[in-house]
Amino acid sequence: MNPLFIVLEGPDASGKSTQLRLLADALSARGIGVLTTREPGGTPLGERLRELILSPDSPMNPLTELLLIIGARHEHVERVVRPALEEGKWVLCSRYTLSSLAYQGWGRGLDLDLIRRLNQLATGGLEPDYVFLLDLPPAVAYERTRERDRFEGEGLEFFTRVRVGYLALIRSVPRAHVIDGTLPEERVLREILGHLPLPGI
Amino acid sequence: MNPLFIVLEGPDASGKSTQLRLLADALSARGIGVLTTREPGGTPLGERLRELILSPDSPMNPLTELLLIIGARHEHVERVVRPALEEGKWVLCSRYTLSSLAYQGWGRGLDLDLIRRLNQLATGGLEPDYVFLLDLPPAVAYERTRERDRFEGEGLEFFTRVRVGYLALIRSVPRAHVIDGTLPEERVLREILGHLPLPGI
Repeated sequence: MNPLFIVLEGPDASGKSTQLRLLADALSARGIGVLTTREPGGTPLGERLRELILSPDSPMNPLTELLLIIGARHEHVERVVRPALEEGKWVLCSRYTLSSLAYQGWGRGLDLDLIRRLNQLATGGLEPDYVFLLDLPPAVAYERTRERDRFEGEGLEFFTRVRVGYLALIRSVPRAHVIDGTLPEERVLREILGHLPLPGI
Repeated sequence: MNPLFIVLEGPDASGKSTQLRLLADALSARGIGVLTTREPGGTPLGERLRELILSPDSPMNPLTELLLIIGARHEHVERVVRPALEEGKWVLCSRYTLSSLAYQGWGRGLDLDLIRRLNQLATGGLEPDYVFLLDLPPAVAYERTRERDRFEGEGLEFFTRVRVGYLALIRSVPRAHVIDGTLPEERVLREILGHLPLPGI
């Protein structure tokens, strides 16, 4: 089968990194070649941009934030995601285009159509095959984060807007599934695996 | 009179920084409040982006480069240029929107209309009152630069495309003047001052 591009979305502390790792292990155990990566980041340049974007010490306007994230995304798609898929690897990615719509759109209030156009520009139209939204009540997400980066410092109201955004946006995303991020991690993994077309299962 | 927004353009080593300084001195001597700044850069975040953009150690795709420059520009316009103009200061800036069209458009081959749209997005339509292009034959510019950053490492052909671009673009820029960058610096300054509507001259 064709390699799949799978994206995990959700607030910080919703378990994306853990699920990325568990999912990579589960797929590798089935003999599937896997690349795990993340946004913003995933390239040396992208990781340096990530630091700037997340650092509470670099205040920036919402549109600046969006443009840096879109720049990092373009680099990531062209240098990491597309090449891996072309090599036949499955790509498991924490955050992608939907994050920009939820955070910079619903969270920061930037125009959603602008974000869609910039996403299209950055990705050349590369869409994930599957999206899993690890949903968490904002208060739980907020409580789970101790050291707060520039986003986590935004407070509960911001996180509530982002969550509402995620839930509204995901309805128009094909092959997207909302998963309860308060479930135990093995259970979340089982749900994700249950949605994927896996060889030999 | 209203404060003016004056932009110096041209290749590296064309004397932009020197003229920025000389011009600031000449205007200050006439009692004009002046802010000198530069792109990419001009804000703490912008200067960190500038390092990334110029460093020969951070390879990046042309569109990534453009998006980072546009992000830095937005930050610069909103946090530095506009506030200074609103305070009544003249703003003297090394590089602005025209650089993106010359370097990322003519130099790197990105679509000029895309760059114009992103420039518009970043600046909210803030145009300079005067643009001075310090023109230099590419071979001279190339010879003058010793330590080569990521752009200066591009070679003569790239610089030739950028120069042709500059000269083609500038014809449609209002109140833009091409100045021979091989002239002595006092002479270049005199030419610039001769084009400006200065109080008491």
